[in-house]
Amino acid sequence: MSESLSSIKGISCAAINASIKNNDALDLSVVSLVPGTTTAGVFTQNVFCAAPVVVAKNHLQQTPLALLINSGNANAGTGTQGMENTLKTCELLANDLGIKIEQVLPFSTGVIGQQLNLSKFEEGIPKVTTQLSGVNLAQVAKGILTTDLVEKTISKQFNINGETVTITGIAKGSGMIRPNMATMLSFIFTDLKATQDQLQACLTTATNQSFNRITVDGDTSTNDACTLSATGTSGVSIDECEAEFQQVLNTVTKALAHKIIKDGEGATKFVEVCVKGGSSNEDCLEVAYTVAHSPLVKTALFASDANWGRILAAVGRANIANLNIEDINIYLNNVSIVKSGEPDASYTEQAGSAEMVKENIVITIEIGTSDAQESVWTTDFSYDYVKINAEYRT
Amino acid sequence: MSESLSSIKGISCAAINASIKNNDALDLSVVSLVPGTTTAGVFTQNVFCAAPVVVAKNHLQQTPLALLINSGNANAGTGTQGMENTLKTCELLANDLGIKIEQVLPFSTGVIGQQLNLSKFEEGIPKVTTQLSGVNLAQVAKGILTTDLVEKTISKQFNINGETVTITGIAKGSGMIRPNMATMLSFIFTDLKATQDQLQACLTTATNQSFNRITVDGDTSTNDACTLSATGTSGVSIDECEAEFQQVLNTVTKALAHKIIKDGEGATKFVEVCVKGGSSNEDCLEVAYTVAHSPLVKTALFASDANWGRILAAVGRANIANLNIEDINIYLNNVSIVKSGEPDASYTEQAGSAEMVKENIVITIEIGTSDAQESVWTTDFSYDYVKINAEYRT
Repeated sequence: MSESLSSIKGISCAAINASIKNNDALDLSVVSLVPGTTTAGVFTQNVFCAAPVVVAKNHLQQTPLALLINSGNANAGTGTQGMENTLKTCELLANDLGIKIEQVLPFSTGVIGQQLNLSKFEEGIPKVTTQLSGVNLAQVAKGILTTDLVEKTISKQFNINGETVTITGIAKGSGMIRPNMATMLSFIFTDLKATQDQLQACLTTATNQSFNRITVDGDTSTNDACTLSATGTSGVSIDECEAEFQQVLNTVTKALAHKIIKDGEGATKFVEVCVKGGSSNEDCLEVAYTVAHSPLVKTALFASDANWGRILAAVGRANIANLNIEDINIYLNNVSIVKSGEPDASYTEQAGSAEMVKENIVITIEIGTSDAQESVWTTDFSYDYVKINAEYRT
Repeated sequence: MSESLSSIKGISCAAINASIKNNDALDLSVVSLVPGTTTAGVFTQNVFCAAPVVVAKNHLQQTPLALLINSGNANAGTGTQGMENTLKTCELLANDLGIKIEQVLPFSTGVIGQQLNLSKFEEGIPKVTTQLSGVNLAQVAKGILTTDLVEKTISKQFNINGETVTITGIAKGSGMIRPNMATMLSFIFTDLKATQDQLQACLTTATNQSFNRITVDGDTSTNDACTLSATGTSGVSIDECEAEFQQVLNTVTKALAHKIIKDGEGATKFVEVCVKGGSSNEDCLEVAYTVAHSPLVKTALFASDANWGRILAAVGRANIANLNIEDINIYLNNVSIVKSGEPDASYTEQAGSAEMVKENIVITIEIGTSDAQESVWTTDFSYDYVKINAEYRT
């Protein structure tokens, strides 16, 4: 569920239902940023990135003063018409707020391949902007959801030189989740003072150990985006506390990323796949993703079946050089399953089953003795995953 | 269903229920090869390959005179004990037939990670060998099945210099299907005369365009194996007809591979993903597999939902260099969906839906203008896939 959110001075926002979705859920959100705010962003690496991603990346070269988010229509795969429509929605908000088109960052999520209905924005934008308020971030956390079941929010504070710095973040995402250098949609705000370059460096570091390490189905979205905005309203500069800020930001992004996995489409399990000792971090990641994406491993997790042979088979087909059976150890939580490439003599089906029925499972795979280590977080594969995605457009 | 099978002179075989499975299905098969037969084989590239794969590869260095196949227990992930057990089963059959241990090729499929119960083989092998007959290949085609619903068999003949040459093949496989340089289990026989080297070259060529191009779930098995045995009993030498033989063998392996896909776990659709114009065949394959493995594409296929945005998103995340949106065209059967990276103006949802409800679907993706082209064959992702794999060991 949504946690209590600390507001950030200088951020005002609201979300409404503008009938972009086919139901009465909130679907149009605006976040207004006080002048002086700096913003950094990371975006999907999917070649077919959506029109709003292209425009948002471009507009980040200016100093953004507003975020415009719709959660009914992804505006992806919509060609030049989609690009023109995105710019038109930015223009509508810019005119309403008295700022420049280039100061609006647009974001979209929802169905791919349909053109926006601009009349919904013409009607909706004046409505949402009249409701802008400093305490509405929880409403926006609802307004950006699609197939998500719960809002994903977090606030963290730290003290430096007698001052309090706050970081508040919101995110959405449930399916088509394997972010690549970005996330689904996530918006993070802080009252720290920082340059865009400083924010960008912190955000890249934070997303690489959080959003870029989660996967529901291996399908990287066309619309992933994550921004970090710093209003400077706390009076504290990042120069006084860069290490602390990075550490708390890492905590915030990791918490939001894990909330996305826990709300993964049809998910009944929260699974960490931790791979250690590869000849590089890339090798560790390759093995981790191969296990995390295996439909056979994921259905065994759903069934709480300690069918560890499927884990072993997935490790064995990972696309890395020099994988030696005799170096491999596998653990289910703290239960040793495979030791030096052979079934651990102490393993019992009962011990394995006792771990598989748990909601939180850590699969640890040692493939060598180096210090390299990577974790990815994923879910199981259930009837409901098929149901949700077979019926998504009906 | 099983097609009418031409027997091959010099091949005798049988299958029985030896209670290796928990039911009364056939589970222990023996194929006896007339002295003078040459045999080639290709095997899984999974690092954790099963004990029988290790032994069969080793025994191929001799001249095999018998195949021993159990379909109840994969004998994979079973360490040194599994290796000893495999050799023991070879010994049991060798003693029974009066041949050398090294002349027996062992194969296994079924549950991973459990040791063989040798007493089942001690009892079963004498029973099955008393039933060996030249006309029992259809029985063996049943005897090698696990979660398969139907037998996969084919016979083809061609004439050369007034003589008839026959190729007869059987295969099994339904889940954990993404063969890599091999197949699940497939056994192919011919009465042609050929050396092992000649057979090996033909088999490698044939499997690369058939078994190595199918995928159900991306999970490469630990037990994949395919053999080709040539008895020479037709009196025709491969030197007289290498091109014809290769062509017919390609037809046989492709037909068997497609039968595996059509019987894929929970499959309701037979889907070809054809990618053209990449800067290399490897690039075409990478794009094809990315689409074929996408859970979102596969659930849309199951739902007969023309949600082509998911195809586009999968193409966009494929791990190849220099993918340019403006070069990309996508077709659903003959319906153009995406043209030069944008939605085709002529496309209608109705036209897309009319193709998606079909049982046979070809997704053609042009990513450039080169001659490179690769196809992979796959299935949709249904409730039954989850059900079959969640309940596999219960």
